[in-house]
Amino acid sequence: MTAKLPIGILGATGIVGQRFVQMLEHHPWFEVAWLAASDRSEGRLYAEAARWKLKTSIPSRVAEMRVSPATPDGAPKVIFAALDASIAAEMEPRFAAAGCAVVTNSSALRMQGDVPLVIPEVNHDHIKLIECQSWRKKSGGFVVTNPNCSAIGLVIALAPLQHAFGLDTVMAVTMQAVSGAGYPGVASLDILGNVIPYIAKEEEKMEEETRKLLGKLNGSGIIMGSFGMSAQCNRVSRRERSRKRLFKPGTSSAACRKN
Amino acid sequence: MTAKLPIGILGATGIVGQRFVQMLEHHPWFEVAWLAASDRSEGRLYAEAARWKLKTSIPSRVAEMRVSPATPDGAPKVIFAALDASIAAEMEPRFAAAGCAVVTNSSALRMQGDVPLVIPEVNHDHIKLIECQSWRKKSGGFVVTNPNCSAIGLVIALAPLQHAFGLDTVMAVTMQAVSGAGYPGVASLDILGNVIPYIAKEEEKMEEETRKLLGKLNGSGIIMGSFGMSAQCNRVSRRERSRKRLFKPGTSSAACRKN
Amino acid sequence: MTAKLPIGILGATGIVGQRFVQMLEHHPWFEVAWLAASDRSEGRLYAEAARWKLKTSIPSRVAEMRVSPATPDGAPKVIFAALDASIAAEMEPRFAAAGCAVVTNSSALRMQGDVPLVIPEVNHDHIKLIECQSWRKKSGGFVVTNPNCSAIGLVIALAPLQHAFGLDTVMAVTMQAVSGAGYPGVASLDILGNVIPYIAKEEEKMEEETRKLLGKLNGSGIIMGSFGMSAQCNRVSRRERSRKRLFKPGTSSAACRKN
Amino acid sequence: MTAKLPIGILGATGIVGQRFVQMLEHHPWFEVAWLAASDRSEGRLYAEAARWKLKTSIPSRVAEMRVSPATPDGAPKVIFAALDASIAAEMEPRFAAAGCAVVTNSSALRMQGDVPLVIPEVNHDHIKLIECQSWRKKSGGFVVTNPNCSAIGLVIALAPLQHAFGLDTVMAVTMQAVSGAGYPGVASLDILGNVIPYIAKEEEKMEEETRKLLGKLNGSGIIMGSFGMSAQCNRVSRRERSRKRLFKPGTSSAACRKN
Repeated sequence: MTAKLPIGILGATGIVGQRFVQMLEHHPWFEVAWLAASDRSEGRLYAEAARWKLKTSIPSRVAEMRVSPATPDGAPKVIFAALDASIAAEMEPRFAAAGCAVVTNSSALRMQGDVPLVIPEVNHDHIKLIECQSWRKKSGGFVVTNPNCSAIGLVIALAPLQHAFGLDTVMAVTMQAVSGAGYPGVASLDILGNVIPYIAKEEEKMEEETRKLLGKLNGSGIIMGSFGMSAQCNRVSRRERSRKRLFKPGTSSAACRKN
Repeated sequence: MTAKLPIGILGATGIVGQRFVQMLEHHPWFEVAWLAASDRSEGRLYAEAARWKLKTSIPSRVAEMRVSPATPDGAPKVIFAALDASIAAEMEPRFAAAGCAVVTNSSALRMQGDVPLVIPEVNHDHIKLIECQSWRKKSGGFVVTNPNCSAIGLVIALAPLQHAFGLDTVMAVTMQAVSGAGYPGVASLDILGNVIPYIAKEEEKMEEETRKLLGKLNGSGIIMGSFGMSAQCNRVSRRERSRKRLFKPGTSSAACRKN
Repeated sequence: MTAKLPIGILGATGIVGQRFVQMLEHHPWFEVAWLAASDRSEGRLYAEAARWKLKTSIPSRVAEMRVSPATPDGAPKVIFAALDASIAAEMEPRFAAAGCAVVTNSSALRMQGDVPLVIPEVNHDHIKLIECQSWRKKSGGFVVTNPNCSAIGLVIALAPLQHAFGLDTVMAVTMQAVSGAGYPGVASLDILGNVIPYIAKEEEKMEEETRKLLGKLNGSGIIMGSFGMSAQCNRVSRRERSRKRLFKPGTSSAACRKN
Repeated sequence: MTAKLPIGILGATGIVGQRFVQMLEHHPWFEVAWLAASDRSEGRLYAEAARWKLKTSIPSRVAEMRVSPATPDGAPKVIFAALDASIAAEMEPRFAAAGCAVVTNSSALRMQGDVPLVIPEVNHDHIKLIECQSWRKKSGGFVVTNPNCSAIGLVIALAPLQHAFGLDTVMAVTMQAVSGAGYPGVASLDILGNVIPYIAKEEEKMEEETRKLLGKLNGSGIIMGSFGMSAQCNRVSRRERSRKRLFKPGTSSAACRKN
C-alpha cells in the first residue's frame, strides 16, 4: 500500500482554500501536510485562523494543524494554491522557482504564454507547455492553472460542438451565485432582491480563457481560438452552485436549479 | 373643461387589474367608472374583493366601488382588460362584439391575424388593423393588445437597430422578477435562493411577438419579421422591476439594478 | 432475521408525505407497502403523482408504486398520516375504527381528550391514553399525534426547566421557514425581502399544545399545564430548517443558522 | 422670511450620513452647508466620495459640494453626526468643545452620564442635562444623542404602558433588516436564506438605552429604570424598514410588512 503524497495548501484559510481542505479530506492519493495563508494566520491553529463557511464540518485532523509561514522552505513539493490574484502573481512563481509543482485556482498566471490553462476532459494535452517554463528547466518546478468557474462550464459544453461543427460565434450569459465572490464578498444590500448585471473582470476572463482553452498547442505556446466571443456576466441572489437537481420538463411551474 | 372619459377595468382584482387602477388614479383623460372580475367578486366592495398587493394605497374612490358582473351590459365603451389568458379568449371577443374598445394586457388574442399588437413608440401604424376586425364592422367594437413585458423591453431596443442595420439573428436571455407571475404566482419554495431557467410559454411569446412587432403592416395582416430569433427566459429571486436605477461603471463592486 | 413491518402512508404526495417516504427509506423496522392520497392521485405512479420537492432523490422502489385508494380496505395495520387537517379530521377516525394504528402529523385530533399528543423524550407516558379510545375498544385501532413543529422545539427545551423549577410564564417568539407551509405554500411576493408577523392558527396551536404536552396524565385525560403562555409566530425568508450548524460566539459578525 | 440655519453633516458619506442628506433636502429650518467624512474623502466632490445607496436621487446641490476636513474650524455651529462609534468617541467631544451643538446618531456617548439620550415624544425633558456638560459651560457647545433604532421602536410603545401601569419585566425580540449594519455591512453569504440570532452589542444597547430612556431626570443625571429587561436581537433577510404597510387580519395567508 503506497503512502499518500504529502501536499500543501497555499491560501488555506479563504473560501477556496477551505474547499481544497474539504475535497482532499479522504483523497486516495493526497494527504494535506502543510497549510499556509497570510502573516495574520501564521502560527495559529487552522480552526481558529479560518472562518469556516462550508456546510460540512471542518476535518478534525486539519483543524488541529498550525498554519505555516507562506514560504517554500519546508513546504511539500506539490502545492494547491488558492490565493487572491494580486498575491498569487508574486507568490506562485516563488514556489515554482523553488521546485514546487503549483496547481492553482488563481487567475494571476492563467494567460501567461507558457502556463497551461487546463480542463482535463477538454485540453489535457496543453499540459506539455510545462516543459517550456523557465522554472521547470532550473528547479523542476512549474505552474498549472484551472480556469474561471463559468468558463469551465461553458467550455465543457462547447468542446464537442467545436469538434463536430467548428465554432463561429459564442454569446454567453451567466447567472452567478454569491459564493463565487468569496467572503465577505457581495454585500447583502447589493444583492437582496436584486440582480447585478456586471461582475468586474469576469467577462474578460470568460472571453480570453475560452479562446485559450479551445486553442491549439503549438510548440511553445497556444494559438488562441479565433471564433467570435462575447460574454455578459450577472450576479444573482443565490448562495452557491447546487449539486443534485431535478428537472421535470413540461410542467407549468418547473423548478430547476441551475448548476 | 372636458369631462373625463368613463372607462372600465375587466379583471380588476388581480395584480394586473390593480396596476391599471393605480395608474389610472389621477389620469387626465380617463376615469375608472366600472370594475368587473370573477363571479366570486361580483357585488362586493372592491377593497374587499381585491387582495391589494401594490406599494401605494388603494385609491379611496375605487376602493368604495362595487364590482359589477363581467358582462358588456352597462359597461363603459372603453375597457382595459387584465384577465387570465384562458378567460380572456372567451370574454374579450364578447365585449368587442358588443361595441366596446377593448385594450388588453392578456396574451389571448395577441397573435390573431387582425388584432394589432402594439408598442406605440415602435409600430403604432399597426393599429390600422382594427378596421379589418369583424367586430369593428358590425358594432364598432375592437381589440388592441400590448405585448408580453419582456418582449416590450427587447423590441424597444431592437427597433432602431433594425431600422439602421436590419436584423439577422436575435438571441435573448431574460432574468424576470416574480411579480410577472401574478399572485400567488411563484411559490417561495421554488425561488428562494434559486434560479428557474424556464418560464412556461414565455420563450414562445417573446419569439413570435417580436416577429409580429417588427413585422410589416400589409393590408389585412402583418408580414412577420424574418430574422432568426431565440429566447431563453429565467425567473430570478426578485420582487419586481424597479424604476430609478444608479449605475457607476468602473467600480469593483458596482451595484446596478436591472430594469 | 425479522421481516420488516409493512406500513402505509396516507397523504403520501404532499411535502409531509414525501418527508415520511424519505425518512422511511432504509428504516430497520418498517417497509413502505402502501401509499394513498387524494382521488386525483389514485392509480397513478407515485413518481408522477407527487411533485417531489426534497433535496434527496425519490427512493426508486417507492417511485414505482401505484397510489392506492384512500380507504382502510387493503391498507396495512400501521399508518403514518400526513393529510391536511380538514381531510384528516374525517379520515383518521375511519382508519382507526377499521383497526389501524394511525400515527399522524396532522393537527386535526391533537387536542381531542383521549388522543395522546406526544414527544417521546418528554411525555411518552401519555401514550396510555390510547386505551381510553373507543376505536381501541372496538377494533384495536387508535390514533397518536405528534405536535406542531414549533411546539416540539419549545417543549423539549421547557420540559427540564419545568421539572427543575416549575413554569410560571412562557413567552415564545418564532421565526419559521417557508417549508412549514407546505407546497405551494407561501407566495414569493409575500415573503421576498419581508417578514410576515402572523401565521394563521400557529400561535393558538403553540399555546394549547404546549399546555397539553407539559400537562399531567390523569386516568382518562390530561390536566393541562396551568402556566401563563403567549406565542407570537413569524414567517421569515428562509427555505427550511438546517441540520448542521456552526456557531462561533464572540465574533463581530457571527453567522448562526437557527434550527 | 427667515433664512435657514446652516448645518453640517459629520460622517456624510456613509449610509447614515446619506440618510441625513436625504431627509434634510427640503427642510424648512435647515440648510446643509458643510459636509465632512474621513481623510480619504477630503476635498472630493460629495457625489464621488459617497457610494450613494438610497432609492431617491442624490440631491444635486449637495452632490456638487466638496467634502471639508473633519475639524471644527470653519464648520457650522450645528452639526448632525453620523460617524462610526469608534471615531465618534474622539471627534464628537472635539466639536462640542469648540462650541458646536452636536446632534448625533452614534452610540459612542449615549450612556455618558451628562449626555441626554432622547426620543422627543417620550423624554424631551432629559434635554436639560445639556446644562450639566463641561463643554456647555466652557464654549456653549453640547452633545445630544438619539437611541439605537430598535430601542426607539420599543420605547415608544413602552412609554404609555409604563405611565399607565408601571413596568415589571420587558422581554424583547427583534428581527432587524440588513440596512441597520451599514455598507458593506452583512455579507450576503451570511444572510441569504438565513437568520442570524445575534447582533454584536445590540442586545446590550437595547437593554441599557431602554432603562435610560424610561428613567427619571434627577438634577445632574438620570436614575435608570429599574424594571427587568432582556433583549434578543436577530438579523433577517430583509433590506430595510418599509414605510406604508397594509394588514388584513383574519386571512389565511396574511401578508404583513413589519416596521
